[in-house]
Amino acid sequence: MRTTTGWQADGPTTLRRTELKRRDLRPDDLAVRIDYCGVCHSDLHAIRHQDSAAGALVPGHEFTGVVTETGPAVTRFAPGDPVAVGNIVDSCGECGMCRAGQENFCHAFPTLTYGGTDRLDGSTTLGGFSREYVVREGFAYPLPAGLDPAAAAPLLCAGVTVWEPLRALGVGPGSRVAVAGLGGLGHLAVMMAVALGATTSVISRSSGKADDARRLGAHGFVVSTDPDQVAAARDTFDVVIDTISAPHDLGPYLRLVAMDGTLSHLGHLGPVTVDTMDLLLGRKKLSSAGSGGRPATAAMLEFCAEHGITAEIELLPSARVNEALDRLGRNDVRYRFVLDLSDLS
Amino acid sequence: MRTTTGWQADGPTTLRRTELKRRDLRPDDLAVRIDYCGVCHSDLHAIRHQDSAAGALVPGHEFTGVVTETGPAVTRFAPGDPVAVGNIVDSCGECGMCRAGQENFCHAFPTLTYGGTDRLDGSTTLGGFSREYVVREGFAYPLPAGLDPAAAAPLLCAGVTVWEPLRALGVGPGSRVAVAGLGGLGHLAVMMAVALGATTSVISRSSGKADDARRLGAHGFVVSTDPDQVAAARDTFDVVIDTISAPHDLGPYLRLVAMDGTLSHLGHLGPVTVDTMDLLLGRKKLSSAGSGGRPATAAMLEFCAEHGITAEIELLPSARVNEALDRLGRNDVRYRFVLDLSDLS
Repeated sequence: MRTTTGWQADGPTTLRRTELKRRDLRPDDLAVRIDYCGVCHSDLHAIRHQDSAAGALVPGHEFTGVVTETGPAVTRFAPGDPVAVGNIVDSCGECGMCRAGQENFCHAFPTLTYGGTDRLDGSTTLGGFSREYVVREGFAYPLPAGLDPAAAAPLLCAGVTVWEPLRALGVGPGSRVAVAGLGGLGHLAVMMAVALGATTSVISRSSGKADDARRLGAHGFVVSTDPDQVAAARDTFDVVIDTISAPHDLGPYLRLVAMDGTLSHLGHLGPVTVDTMDLLLGRKKLSSAGSGGRPATAAMLEFCAEHGITAEIELLPSARVNEALDRLGRNDVRYRFVLDLSDLS
Repeated sequence: MRTTTGWQADGPTTLRRTELKRRDLRPDDLAVRIDYCGVCHSDLHAIRHQDSAAGALVPGHEFTGVVTETGPAVTRFAPGDPVAVGNIVDSCGECGMCRAGQENFCHAFPTLTYGGTDRLDGSTTLGGFSREYVVREGFAYPLPAGLDPAAAAPLLCAGVTVWEPLRALGVGPGSRVAVAGLGGLGHLAVMMAVALGATTSVISRSSGKADDARRLGAHGFVVSTDPDQVAAARDTFDVVIDTISAPHDLGPYLRLVAMDGTLSHLGHLGPVTVDTMDLLLGRKKLSSAGSGGRPATAAMLEFCAEHGITAEIELLPSARVNEALDRLGRNDVRYRFVLDLSDLS
């Protein structure tokens, strides 16, 4: 076993610095020195809802770094290569979803970057809030030149989570897209939708983020608490990307979707209740998505490199991880915390 | 005012025969002698949930008959013409939905054939369980030659309710469609999907309707209580048309939808709860639809005439309306009751 250092939760409390083990390299494994890891709402959720009986939790599933060592069967990476890893590190490889390049929907469930169960040795995976990770090369991505490795880290989860539905829903020139919630996911969705050629609006509870929305490239802004603005926006968006992380009533957002359009509900997992009438009146669709398959992840990284898209981040030394989590819980971040793991060396 | 006879509910009880009034013809009105009216689950729902304070209820919103009189501005109909009317008899005519020919989604809400409020005189509309109806010509449809008027009546609500989503979801040759629930809506959905060229399956709780499904043209049959059949059908249907009229868990049906496919939930109104994961794993969509706009209704009637599609019905004299409602409540009908109103003359 290999030894590294990381940030671990032993229960729904603050994280503490600890030593942790990584597996010895299998033939198709890479060892990655993690330089930067984004802090995702799902990390916060995992910590707050941690089952102490499940053992130690090391969060983190969107990170960039450098390959330090490769197994003998690795063909696509060499030591020194910049690399990125997202929230999936393995899948069955055999089901229809895997064969279609949608490992995120693997019928046998993909192995998550942390809190997952390794398909070979049964161990629980430990995440990227650490200095080293060992991963199959097939689930690592070359980090394209020109992408800042710190600001690119959030692309690996937040980025691909909004990218996949934008692409699957056919967003391009002529599309009318609205992004509800201008946070980690939302600000990336705005930049990607704009770069895809869509007329793009932001839906927000107040006008406080209107300047930011414009700066990110948005063409429109709807204050969801202003009845006149909401009435004017009714049935006008082919796609609404809902990135709001708290449970909320989907009705007001569905009513902004155009006929035969789709509300893609991304920010919050769990049961959602909708009034059938909000779907019926306009044959509207409710969808969801999460993370991405390997081809989409690679394509998203290339697209972002081509269009100069990375997250707007607040970079903190990893020793301030608890502060980051606390502020994220209060939505006090524009737009993504990224941990600099070099203080773990 | 004109006088006719119909079947009226004064509360959530049985219907009784009564005399009722129709408005004098306005310039663009037709008087229709109703010959046949289908009995819809929503009629049953309306009766059972009737607010006695709201006044008399005369159900019925899918009927065929003959034009008996026309207002002076009527151009498309003459006395003697066979005619059909559905569940919408007016709309604002000005909103984006009306302008797009989707009067069923009118922003000001369409005027329903019964229980609606007339846009000119404010009266409550009374439905098609009666011998005469007065309707704006714009909301009446010529009944194409070759369609049996009794068996065609259910096309005007059940038919167009499944037709619109089939068309909006692009069902055609190569599509894989499943119809959940083989009742009034479901059996029409099967025939239409087959005629549109889709590979069509029926999903049912038992194999009891397998022969019927085959006879209607279905290519496949999935017994939803058989785990092996359900596992084999996972992620295989581009479109699932869910016509089940009782509240039910949508999860098992969503899991049969293929990646980027849609579950169109038609049979039941009211709030529905879905687990986001059932949408997320495959970027699946939940949609709904109901009734149809005028262009779609007219197109559906032409399509059915061309392909010889009408409902399979049990025709009863209207005096047996309470028996029909009672049996419908127990799902004891294959596949639609139609009332013969000639006993009201």
